[in-house]
Amino acid sequence: MAVSNFTQDELDEIYAFAVDLGRKAGDLLMERIEQRISGSEGHSQKFEEKDSSVDIVTQTDEDLEVFIRNAIQEKYPDHKFLGEETYAKGQSRDYLIDEHPTWCIDPLDGKRLIQPHHLTPLKMLTFPGTVNYTHLFPMFCISIGFIVQHRPIIGVIYAPFQDQLFSACPGRGAWLNEKRKLPLIRNPSIPPMPANAPSSCIFSCEWGKDRRDIPDGNMRRKLESFTNMAAEIGSRDGKGGMVHGMRSLGSATLDLAYTAMGSFDIWWEGGCWEWDVAAGIAILLEAGGLVTTANPPEDPDTAPIEDLRLGSRLYLAIRPAGPSETETGRESQERTVREVWRRVRHLSYSRPGA
Amino acid sequence: MAVSNFTQDELDEIYAFAVDLGRKAGDLLMERIEQRISGSEGHSQKFEEKDSSVDIVTQTDEDLEVFIRNAIQEKYPDHKFLGEETYAKGQSRDYLIDEHPTWCIDPLDGKRLIQPHHLTPLKMLTFPGTVNYTHLFPMFCISIGFIVQHRPIIGVIYAPFQDQLFSACPGRGAWLNEKRKLPLIRNPSIPPMPANAPSSCIFSCEWGKDRRDIPDGNMRRKLESFTNMAAEIGSRDGKGGMVHGMRSLGSATLDLAYTAMGSFDIWWEGGCWEWDVAAGIAILLEAGGLVTTANPPEDPDTAPIEDLRLGSRLYLAIRPAGPSETETGRESQERTVREVWRRVRHLSYSRPGA
Repeated sequence: MAVSNFTQDELDEIYAFAVDLGRKAGDLLMERIEQRISGSEGHSQKFEEKDSSVDIVTQTDEDLEVFIRNAIQEKYPDHKFLGEETYAKGQSRDYLIDEHPTWCIDPLDGKRLIQPHHLTPLKMLTFPGTVNYTHLFPMFCISIGFIVQHRPIIGVIYAPFQDQLFSACPGRGAWLNEKRKLPLIRNPSIPPMPANAPSSCIFSCEWGKDRRDIPDGNMRRKLESFTNMAAEIGSRDGKGGMVHGMRSLGSATLDLAYTAMGSFDIWWEGGCWEWDVAAGIAILLEAGGLVTTANPPEDPDTAPIEDLRLGSRLYLAIRPAGPSETETGRESQERTVREVWRRVRHLSYSRPGA
Repeated sequence: MAVSNFTQDELDEIYAFAVDLGRKAGDLLMERIEQRISGSEGHSQKFEEKDSSVDIVTQTDEDLEVFIRNAIQEKYPDHKFLGEETYAKGQSRDYLIDEHPTWCIDPLDGKRLIQPHHLTPLKMLTFPGTVNYTHLFPMFCISIGFIVQHRPIIGVIYAPFQDQLFSACPGRGAWLNEKRKLPLIRNPSIPPMPANAPSSCIFSCEWGKDRRDIPDGNMRRKLESFTNMAAEIGSRDGKGGMVHGMRSLGSATLDLAYTAMGSFDIWWEGGCWEWDVAAGIAILLEAGGLVTTANPPEDPDTAPIEDLRLGSRLYLAIRPAGPSETETGRESQERTVREVWRRVRHLSYSRPGA
């Protein structure tokens, strides 16, 4: 199954390159972690400043992006390259992806761009926020996505602290550590979405960085949506979804990876950027998942299930699903999409400058 | 530093036994996982029923508890043993721990006791709920705690899918995989709690299983507390805490382990049972963390910081902290406790039957 004008051989080569690159970048990241743990980063890094934990993380982020960009540009000089740091430095939030084959990477996910008051505008955009990485909460990763005609097709996500590498290539399937096919539970068959979804489901969601407590702001809309999904059946004017579990990892990238794995049934999020999701979407789609928009259409029961729009900052993802006696896997996914749409609010994330 | 009438040698021996037992139980669990992934569990297990995913997990849970209990009772016949399954089978929710040295274990955490309508009373209590394990979301673990005079002193938590073993023994420190001392960031010194805590903190919390959407019920109280912690500074009548990140893993046990590691700064939870927290509390305390009650006292600014009460089902935990120029580590932890207490609601969890 070749994609666009790439042959399977070409795709396989790009895929092998991306996996190797992800691992090498992960090794580099683990070296930095060992330095942080041993307390030796002050000696080996080229700077020493007051707010050193922030600077050390920023420096690691930038070094990783340079490492990954150089490798890609040397190997594939004709491909476009977009890194999270590219955006940060340019202070642009435009959607910069076009028809060309494009690498879209996040050198160190598990931080978030935030705007603390004491930072200058430039620093605002490069400040690694919440930061699973800063806290060494292991849910941080390197994310490398390859996009053709706005569709992520090859993805590598590597979480080096727990040595979990997720990867996918068209025609080759999606994998954990190149040995376990995703989703994990697939023998003798991939389970369909539960008949009573979203009940019985694990729902993955993130609070995000927009914490303004204003009437009908994103935080309140998210919370209302979360609460609908969580509350017992019959409550909240019939919107109670009684999901089995609510999970928040602080990483859209890993949320998608675990949805591809089958660990999460549903992921619903607004506000993330294309470098957060490119690799994860490639992996989830190749594993058999569904990705559409987070924002419910006017009639969630009948509206067509819109295809994902990269750059929309609004995503709803459903795990891979197999057929039941009464439905195809796709039908059970679409049924679940509609059940989520019935319970969630519109989110309002525009692209500053776009 | 001997505890009670145990010598350091005796503690060391118990600790080594517990670590070895945790690893062996983890290996057993991984065998079952490989069977689930390969689809061969139907052949190797001794039962085949309709609702097989539930039954397989229940069976694994019970087998693990028997394995762990037998090992402990053979090695330490004079110690008391309490397992999560012991409680489940007896249908008692009494606090059964007394002055005797007691092993308190959860053979398979990352599930929750829930009460689905279609299950019989006995099954209600043994049904593994939400289930990181059922979904193979890697945040499931084996939890082995050793308690003396109501205080967890030795703990082993093993999350085999990501091969993370957390452990602690009095006088020996707390460890990840027996090679990285906890908290991880400790060189040249353990960071104090942030001056502006809970801002800058990662806040770990769980939605739990009480999803009744009733006025002033636990779900609404939790949500109000979560929202206070998350909302920007200045909002919500001054209660906005603007924490850097909100995390929910679905496992109180691993929440505590990551707090000991320094990955989470604050963990606040009601509703969990002693087998969920015994090992984690031992590890967190040995790492230098603080554990007190989730429920704020009448005057959170001045009330004494109550010592943890095992069995209270209400916990607030703060990560290990070192001194700053103006505070001891303990002072920065206590300051953080009070800042959390100012923002959270009382939770109401009683012990059915107690």
